[in-house]
Amino acid sequence: MKFSFKPLPAGIVAPRGFHAAGVYCDIKRLGTGKGSEKGAKRDLALIVSAEPTAAAGLFTTNQVCAAPVKLCVEHLREAHARAIVVNSGNANACTGRQGMKDARVMAEAAARVLKIPATQVFVASTGRIGVPLPMANVRRGIAAAARELSADATGAGNAAEAILTSDTRPKEIAVEFRLGAHPVRIGGMCKGAGMIQPGMSPTGARPASAPLHATMLGFITTDASIEKPALQAALTESVAASFNRITVDGDMSTNDTVIAMANGLAGNPRITRGRRADFLKFQSALQHVTLELAKMIVRDGEGATRFVTVRVAGARTRTEADMAARSVANSVLVKTSWFGGDPNWGRILDALGYSAAKIDERRVDVAYSAPGGRERLYSLRRGQPAKTPFRSLCEQVARPEFDLHIHLNTGRGSAVIYAADLTEAYVEFNKGNINDPASLGG
Amino acid sequence: MKFSFKPLPAGIVAPRGFHAAGVYCDIKRLGTGKGSEKGAKRDLALIVSAEPTAAAGLFTTNQVCAAPVKLCVEHLREAHARAIVVNSGNANACTGRQGMKDARVMAEAAARVLKIPATQVFVASTGRIGVPLPMANVRRGIAAAARELSADATGAGNAAEAILTSDTRPKEIAVEFRLGAHPVRIGGMCKGAGMIQPGMSPTGARPASAPLHATMLGFITTDASIEKPALQAALTESVAASFNRITVDGDMSTNDTVIAMANGLAGNPRITRGRRADFLKFQSALQHVTLELAKMIVRDGEGATRFVTVRVAGARTRTEADMAARSVANSVLVKTSWFGGDPNWGRILDALGYSAAKIDERRVDVAYSAPGGRERLYSLRRGQPAKTPFRSLCEQVARPEFDLHIHLNTGRGSAVIYAADLTEAYVEFNKGNINDPASLGG
Repeated sequence: MKFSFKPLPAGIVAPRGFHAAGVYCDIKRLGTGKGSEKGAKRDLALIVSAEPTAAAGLFTTNQVCAAPVKLCVEHLREAHARAIVVNSGNANACTGRQGMKDARVMAEAAARVLKIPATQVFVASTGRIGVPLPMANVRRGIAAAARELSADATGAGNAAEAILTSDTRPKEIAVEFRLGAHPVRIGGMCKGAGMIQPGMSPTGARPASAPLHATMLGFITTDASIEKPALQAALTESVAASFNRITVDGDMSTNDTVIAMANGLAGNPRITRGRRADFLKFQSALQHVTLELAKMIVRDGEGATRFVTVRVAGARTRTEADMAARSVANSVLVKTSWFGGDPNWGRILDALGYSAAKIDERRVDVAYSAPGGRERLYSLRRGQPAKTPFRSLCEQVARPEFDLHIHLNTGRGSAVIYAADLTEAYVEFNKGNINDPASLGG
Repeated sequence: MKFSFKPLPAGIVAPRGFHAAGVYCDIKRLGTGKGSEKGAKRDLALIVSAEPTAAAGLFTTNQVCAAPVKLCVEHLREAHARAIVVNSGNANACTGRQGMKDARVMAEAAARVLKIPATQVFVASTGRIGVPLPMANVRRGIAAAARELSADATGAGNAAEAILTSDTRPKEIAVEFRLGAHPVRIGGMCKGAGMIQPGMSPTGARPASAPLHATMLGFITTDASIEKPALQAALTESVAASFNRITVDGDMSTNDTVIAMANGLAGNPRITRGRRADFLKFQSALQHVTLELAKMIVRDGEGATRFVTVRVAGARTRTEADMAARSVANSVLVKTSWFGGDPNWGRILDALGYSAAKIDERRVDVAYSAPGGRERLYSLRRGQPAKTPFRSLCEQVARPEFDLHIHLNTGRGSAVIYAADLTEAYVEFNKGNINDPASLGG
């Protein structure tokens, strides 16, 4: 279903009734710890709805799963939610019982200042693994953020900055569309640059068939009126086609989280899964929002110089198409060849050949196009080098963004993966700095 | 079973009755193509046994599998073998019918000059993918190599040089051990530096349970008298514990091949699987040879600065231990942290958590030791940071070689993977040079 969305400013506060703030409270304990250091990056965000919301969430399927993720799964069982508190600089992962206690204290601290039940507060964290949160700083940050809550673009922008770690820029979006006479708005923000290959599920439990795949955090606000199960269904489907289809480095984080809150202030007739037309419109708008956010993560991937859309078609099944696309998108040799602007089909065929998908090399087509472009330049046809001049292929791969089309010609399954290249800058960044203990962890 | 091997010089010609040569014949078509260019790296090797041999082999389980691999699987069905011809610079992979024809012509050309049946000749290739072999040069090379065959260390050394691609040094070994009164010798050589995570099987068919995992080539000679099925059994077991347990970059090649030839000139009573004591001695010596060769590949991995032995114990099963070890050994974030000398347990736990092995983070131990060392420095005990000073852990990871011990404490399954780090030099090397068409392919 295609219909138009009106882009809006102000990210997560674009929908009616949402307020946000982002403050610096020294989560990394770099400064004096006495509040806002001049020029320091914000590290604690608060998102609040004026009205109770229906909420939905998806969480990492990594078996090593951070305390805030566990708390969110718990709070998601409640009928209503009101707020999300997020810190960067510390993942509160692998922190044992203390970590779980600290996550609860974060929710309680936010609940107290906002005068709402603690079970209506979601918590998310990203940053260093295995270090206890500096709770005095966190508490101070929550109080400061509550004082700064605002419904204008500055509040949303500060929140979008506060959740970043190795990202080079904030990632925000908002759209408006109509359900009948009612303009409905969806806003979103996210973070993520490394340890990125999310595979999220609604409970964090790994489905038997799930692909095995940083921290990415995504937060969605909407003023749509929508039933909780319908919101969860729409979010699950949207994430399956967006955040769960990206890879920077193939590493799935302990903290991946996407949360959506819907407060109903648009006044549209309540969306249910039964109200098909409205549900599909909402889902389509939500998917646009999550996909744009997911692509921002890949484009801002650590050290990345290429944004490659890997499109596999003609696999025996959708699952095999997905496995083939991930095998190519995560091959260190394919990723370094993209960095080099080298249209190396040998490495692509090699990665297909060791994937779990059934491949017949004599049937494989490989082609390039501009992003979303219809005109394809073939490098391989039915397993044989195509006649396209090598220079022309190099020109395709030299572009910062291109589509890689792989047709297996063995069935009708297809899948898309959005991937970054692998560069010396990535390695330089991630080899860490052992003189800086803050570089420990994921 | 532990017993001592006497190290010998002369690699593949150390066993009685073997001759070898390595020549330059311009497989890459870089030069005039008129024979030996002064100072050019040799690119064609020939190994010949004076007597018929029993042979065994293991081949890549990549579905995209090079022509010479297919030919070897075919020739392995014969009762006897006499020779192996190997070229570097061109993988003869993804070359269709012409590739298969060229592989046969290579075997026939060697057979003609050696006056043996073509079906008794194995063929192996490594280098650029998707380009037809320059057959005139190959034929000239085979003729030249046949003229230069020798049983001294120079012949073996030239052959070991001729099979290299991105390797920085030749990889050779030979040992002698006794079966009763009979001194028996095993020699070997191999190549491989990138596109390395072999998963080989005797027919190239992928066992349902096989781990999904460069080109590596390995050639073993022995003067043992051994039945063909016993040789295959010993080789399969040795490779499972050596070449199939290494990873440089996690990419499994289209050309991985290990071939062993046994000519019986040691005069020992014929080894069979039934003659248990002799079989076990032979298998143990063979495994020593293949493991030492396999480790040379990891140590010479493209851009590698670390040789890490990842030892996983306490998994529910051996397969889960293997999956956990590979997940850690292939994690881009873990590999870059090794390069940085960063004892980052967060990334290790993260990679364990998204592996297919069952993990309980509250039970995981992570420790470091010198290679094979008994004294362990713990970074994590039962999921909690250990009290080892950070500096001490950094010292461990700063060493060019160390063991990483992971205990999952959920069962009795264990596995070992030998891995390299991921460095800027690896990326620099593999981004290729699109102005050099010879850099195309794997």
